[in-house]
Parts: sequence; C-alpha cells; structure tokens
Amino acid sequence: MTGVTFDAPTVIRTKRDDGRLSDAAIDWVIEAYTDGRVTDEQMSALLMAIFLRGMDHRETARWTEAMLVSGARMDFTDMRCDGRPLVTVDKHSTGGVGDKVTLPLVAAVAACGAAVPQASGRGLGHTGGTLDKLESIVGFSADLPTARVRQQLCDVGAAIFAAGRLAPADAKLYALRDVTGTVESLPLIASSVMSKKLAEGAGALVLDVKVGSGALLKSESQCRELAETMIALGARHDVPTAALLTDMNCPLGRTAGNALEVAEALEVLAGGGPADVVQLTVQLAAEMLNLVGVHGGDPAQTLRNGTAMDRFRALVAAQGGDLSVPLPVGACSETLTASRGGTMGDIDAMAVGLTVWRLGAGRSRPGERVQPGAGIRMHRRPGEPVAAGEPLFTLYTDTPERFGAAMAELDGGWSVGAAPPVPRPLIIDRITP
Amino acid sequence: MTGVTFDAPTVIRTKRDDGRLSDAAIDWVIEAYTDGRVTDEQMSALLMAIFLRGMDHRETARWTEAMLVSGARMDFTDMRCDGRPLVTVDKHSTGGVGDKVTLPLVAAVAACGAAVPQASGRGLGHTGGTLDKLESIVGFSADLPTARVRQQLCDVGAAIFAAGRLAPADAKLYALRDVTGTVESLPLIASSVMSKKLAEGAGALVLDVKVGSGALLKSESQCRELAETMIALGARHDVPTAALLTDMNCPLGRTAGNALEVAEALEVLAGGGPADVVQLTVQLAAEMLNLVGVHGGDPAQTLRNGTAMDRFRALVAAQGGDLSVPLPVGACSETLTASRGGTMGDIDAMAVGLTVWRLGAGRSRPGERVQPGAGIRMHRRPGEPVAAGEPLFTLYTDTPERFGAAMAELDGGWSVGAAPPVPRPLIIDRITP
Repeated sequence: MTGVTFDAPTVIRTKRDDGRLSDAAIDWVIEAYTDGRVTDEQMSALLMAIFLRGMDHRETARWTEAMLVSGARMDFTDMRCDGRPLVTVDKHSTGGVGDKVTLPLVAAVAACGAAVPQASGRGLGHTGGTLDKLESIVGFSADLPTARVRQQLCDVGAAIFAAGRLAPADAKLYALRDVTGTVESLPLIASSVMSKKLAEGAGALVLDVKVGSGALLKSESQCRELAETMIALGARHDVPTAALLTDMNCPLGRTAGNALEVAEALEVLAGGGPADVVQLTVQLAAEMLNLVGVHGGDPAQTLRNGTAMDRFRALVAAQGGDLSVPLPVGACSETLTASRGGTMGDIDAMAVGLTVWRLGAGRSRPGERVQPGAGIRMHRRPGEPVAAGEPLFTLYTDTPERFGAAMAELDGGWSVGAAPPVPRPLIIDRITP
Repeated sequence: MTGVTFDAPTVIRTKRDDGRLSDAAIDWVIEAYTDGRVTDEQMSALLMAIFLRGMDHRETARWTEAMLVSGARMDFTDMRCDGRPLVTVDKHSTGGVGDKVTLPLVAAVAACGAAVPQASGRGLGHTGGTLDKLESIVGFSADLPTARVRQQLCDVGAAIFAAGRLAPADAKLYALRDVTGTVESLPLIASSVMSKKLAEGAGALVLDVKVGSGALLKSESQCRELAETMIALGARHDVPTAALLTDMNCPLGRTAGNALEVAEALEVLAGGGPADVVQLTVQLAAEMLNLVGVHGGDPAQTLRNGTAMDRFRALVAAQGGDLSVPLPVGACSETLTASRGGTMGDIDAMAVGLTVWRLGAGRSRPGERVQPGAGIRMHRRPGEPVAAGEPLFTLYTDTPERFGAAMAELDGGWSVGAAPPVPRPLIIDRITP
C-alpha cells in the first residue's frame, strides 16, 4: 500500500530491540507470513521477541486487524428471520479443563431469543476444543458453508462451525505458537481470539477469561489485562464485548474428555448436572442476552423446562449428529480409590488436563486424531466427603498403555484431608466496557 | 546418555522464562536440531530467547562443546615435518569491512615458521568472507580433504579450507541466525566461533575482535566480554587463545569487495599497501608467533623481502588458483567526485559494507553466488586532503541497476570537511589469558 518494502530480519530486530512495530510493518509481516514469503522460522523468532518484549495497545490492535483481513469475514447484520432482525451474540472461553459450558449455553441463549454463530476450534495441548467434543456425537459435522450457518441461525438459533477460512493467518500462527513455546503471551492471545471472533460476525461477544492453574495466563492481574485488551479490541470494531473472570484452578463439573463432557452437558440440558457448570452457563447466558438487549427469557428456566434441550437437539440434528447412538466410552478403565476417609481437597485443573491429554483425548500436534471416549470422571468434587475404599477418579482410554503416564500426571494433583479446602468463588469478576 | 527425555517446547520455555539450560538439555537440543528432530522454527524461537535472556558461562561452554562434537575434529598434534614437530596457530576475525588481513597474515606466519590451518567461511550480510575473496582467483578451491590440508601444512605452511564437516550444528545455526535476527548475541557468537575453531585443530588461536559501527557487537565493553568469553573457551580445551580489540568504525585499507581485496592483499605481500592493513597484519602475526613460542622470524620483514609472497603464491598454487590470470573487475563503474575541497572525514564501515553488499559482492541468503568483481575503491582515506572535482569513491558491479541502492547506502557514510577527523588507534587493546 505504502510502497515501503520490508524484510523479515529488520522487522524481527525492531521488536527484539524493544522498538514499536509500525502499522505498515505489521500489515506486511502478517500478509507475507500468510502467503509464505516470511518463513515459519522467521515468524517464530518474531513471536518470541513479541513474547518477551510485548506489544502496546496500538500494535496489538493492528496485529488483530491484519489477521482479521487475512481471510473471509462473516456478516449477519442484514439478516431477518420471521420478519424480525436477527440478533447475534457469541461467547469465547480462553480455554479450560472440563469446560463443556458452550454446549448448554448456546442452546439456552437461542431458547431466549438471541442467535449464536460460533466459529470454534479444535483443542491443542491440555485444554479441550468444542469441536472435538461435538464430534464424539456420531455424524456431527462442523464444516458448514456460510449459507448453512445463516439458515441454521434462523431455524435453530445457533450454529457451531469450524473457523475454516476465518483469519487464516491466526490459524497458521496458532499452530506455530504451540510448538515454539510462545502461547502464553497476552497480546498474542488477545489478537488470536479477537481476530477469529471479529471475523465470525457475531454482533456482540462475552469472554470467559479463565484464571488459575489450568488457564493459559495464571495470575488474576494478567487475566484482567487480557480481558480489558480484548474488550477494547471489540469496541474498536463496534462489537460490544464484556468479560467474566472465572476460576480455573479446578476443572469444571465431574468430567473431562470429549464424549464424557457431552454426556454431562446433556445432564445440564436436562435440568440437572453439576452446580458449577449450571451456574457458569446461566451467568454467561445472562451476560450475552443483556449485552444485546434481549430481555424476557430466563436461561435457568430454559434448562429446567426443556426448551434449551430442544434447541441443542435441533442444532445437533441440523449438523448431522445422531444422539440416539450411545456416546463412545473408552474401552479400558482404571479407577483410583481412597486409601483413607476425609474430605476431598482441591483438584488441580492442570493436572487433570494433562491426565486427559495423556489418555488420548487431546493432541500433541495439529491434525492428530483424538479419542472421543478417553477422559476422566471425578467421583468427588472438592469439599465432598470421602470414605476409605470409595472411588475417587475413573480414567478411560482405548489404549491402556497410556494409563501409566496419565496416572503420573494426576499424582499430586489432588488430596484427601481432614478439613475441606477453602472455597473459591467460581465467578471472580465481571468486566464491562 | 542420561535417559532423560526432553521436548523442544519445554527447553524453549525454560530459557524464555529466564531459566538455566542444563547440560543434558543443551546436548539434547543441539543433537536433535542437527538431525532434524528439533525444527528450524523451534530452534529460532530458542535462539531469540537466548538472544534476549542470555546464557551464562557454563551454558555457553556446554553449547560450544555440543556443537564441537556434532561433527569431525581435526588434529595436527602428531604431525612432524622435515623431522620436526609441526607448530600450528590460527587467527579468527569476528568480521569486518575491507578486512583482507588473513591473506598476507597466513603467508607471513608461515614464512616465520609456524603453520596455519584455517577453516574459513563464506560471507553473509555486510561482512565479507575469506573464501569468497580467494575464490575470485581463477581455479582456487577451498574444498580440501583432510589429507591435503595436512600435506599442505608441511609443504607450504598454510591451508585455507571450507569448514565443511567441522561443527555442522554451527553451520546450520549460523544460516538460521542470519535470517531470524539473532546474529548479534554474545554467547551465540562466542560459541559459533569457538566450536568451529576448536574443531579445526589449530594448536593456538588469536582473535581479532572488531569494535565499532562495522562490527557485529558495537560497544567496546561487549567486545571485551566477547573476547574474554572466547579466551576462556579456548582455555577449557587447552588451546591457548589471545585477542586484539581492533577498530572497525572505518573500513580497512582502500578497497572492499572480493577481487579488489585480493589485489590489495597482493600489494601488502609485495611490501606496499595501505598502512592500516600492514600494521594489523604484522601485529596479528606477532601475537600468533608469540603465543606458540616461535621466535626469530620478523613478519614485517617477510612482507618486505618477498618470503611471505612466496608462501602466498605457493598456497594459491597448491589449491589450484592461477594468479597469472588477471583478477576480475566489475564491468561497470561509477565514480563519486568531491564537490568541494577539504579533508576527508570519517568513513563509516557499516555504510561501506552495505554499499558493497548492494553492489553484489555479498549474499542475502546462504548459497547465493557473489560477484567477484563487485566492490568499492576508496580514493581518499580519513584525514587525507581532497581537492574539488577529485574522485572519492569508485563503485564496481556487473549489474549496473544496483548502483542506485548502493549509492544510497554510501550516502551519509562519509563527509569532506575543513578539519581532519579525530584519529583513532587501530589496535584498541590486547587481551591475553
């Protein structure tokens, strides 16, 4: 555009030496990386320099925009369904363990009258991906052309689809960051999330920013800054964005692993399920509906009266899934029992995440197949009483040679003691623009 | 060896988070990078983390050793020539502009009775490479098998050969650093130089550490630390090592560019040539001879009496070169003349280095062909009087479309003023173990 020519080593050295990347340099490097003129090894050096030197708000905003324009962008603002304008809103979580909230959430929000277009990803590392969970339902497909997404938003009120052509620069960068130790960077996380979510075209966005041992960023202050950065990026693009800071020291619910989490989500949609999953679902749904001014529906009520379940079943059916086929369960299981009685202490989310990953539920490289039936059932939540000999954890996998490494990850990640652990609030804070 | 398994992201994160790399981690990452299990993008992230976090003395020593054992290692300690033990010593420069000193130096040292086995490299970026210079002589070959090197050390007293199988990990890393903005790191420079030079098998080593605008590290304190680090690495491997800190704010001599520098080296070998090139050649030769205790010869004398020239001619002939064929000169030239009279001020080494690189004398990527006849002649040295209309610089290239960019690099890198510039000593300091 400007006629200025850049070269990768010069851009890398600028950031390495703690300089500010110009708008033109950022535009160039993202475009040149997307089409291969900047190599993976050059980009990974730049990512490490960004990791260690940081990016300011202007750089982060431009980096986000450059990734956003690297691919297609969806737009639902013109849509009317049954004669009324379609109101769209989405949620994004920064990634947790046992977090199956998206499944009941999109159904509850749809049942309350707002539509949810959710471009989603597959899991990498110790955190699960929504698409991996849904694909444990026989026949479910996330590869929806845009026309199908639009149709489904009218018909069902929700669509969960593979990010695909949205922000291809981010897709390439995300895979690179995972293997080069450059994941946990605030500006890189913020720009990755927001480029995908802005490309997706939802009219508003609620972020679930995880805090704690199982989260990408561990400290509350970093997470708060991340939330504020993403809220500001949303505002720049006229997408009202709000955030909840929520606890991820402990896994959500009683299960982690793809099919196990779908089963637990179905319990929540049937009006039951673990209290923490229900609480987070209802609170996030309320934030989403509030942000787009859709009032009158009660998300908690939709879980109890079956209207959310109806929406979820309709979504699965529309995307080819068959819930009448039993969900897969790992062919082999091992159960850990309590050697003495007491009270279940804290359960470490990172330890459980790595256990489930070792069992085969996650990937160690992009494109790897995951085991839908691998995972963990946590028979006791923190604070619940335990009698000697009772089951505490059951691990599932199709490949029993994985039990050793999985048990080793779990070891030290939990304890049974005399006193209950200090309770922590699930929802730490609410951040609005 | 230890049974510990590593993975690249964990090693990268350790250094990223300012940790110390263990001996085992360094051994693993260098070996795994050499054989391809650690990818270029992972290594470049690690290099940037090392660039910004540093390595301590123990890490740098282990990194050097791991690169040293990645390939072959030459050894001349058993050699006898004409019934006497062969004494070997080499010099290494950290890279400058117009630095053709190696050519008269190896000849002068050989003429004084010590043998010089010099594994050398090709240039990258703005600094020239000795092999590129010598290869502007028709027929010259640097690809010598070890047996030829040994024979030539006896017959001629010197051999200049491609580093080839020596420290292949370093060769791979060097090319990667060049394109990822991770060149100017003290521990990475020290380990790169010393792994190659220890593998080369010289009995002692004198380092010419360049200081100033045309050097890799600009500040004297950094250069001093670099010299001390390399001297300590030599001592660990029982290779006595000393260093000169020498000025590289201004190019050496009156020429820069491959064939132009060979011609100037021949002037020095004929007893003439620019004073700075002669001074540095003689001082470095004296350091080398002193370090291995070979006394009696006078390097300055060998330049005046033709014995060094005889050795240089013998070296070129032994390696297939034909000095009776005229050296190539760029087909096109442009001369810059003085618009007013005065005194030549400072000439910036980096500006001249980039000018020569733009003219086609250097590479922008490994393996690229260089123009042997491209380069610059500096008609006036700093402090010399200039009359209006006199030629100041002549630029040579085979590709005249390069003149524009080359002149732009030179612009601002020199000035003609009323007063002579403040003189700087060529040899700043001498650092011994």
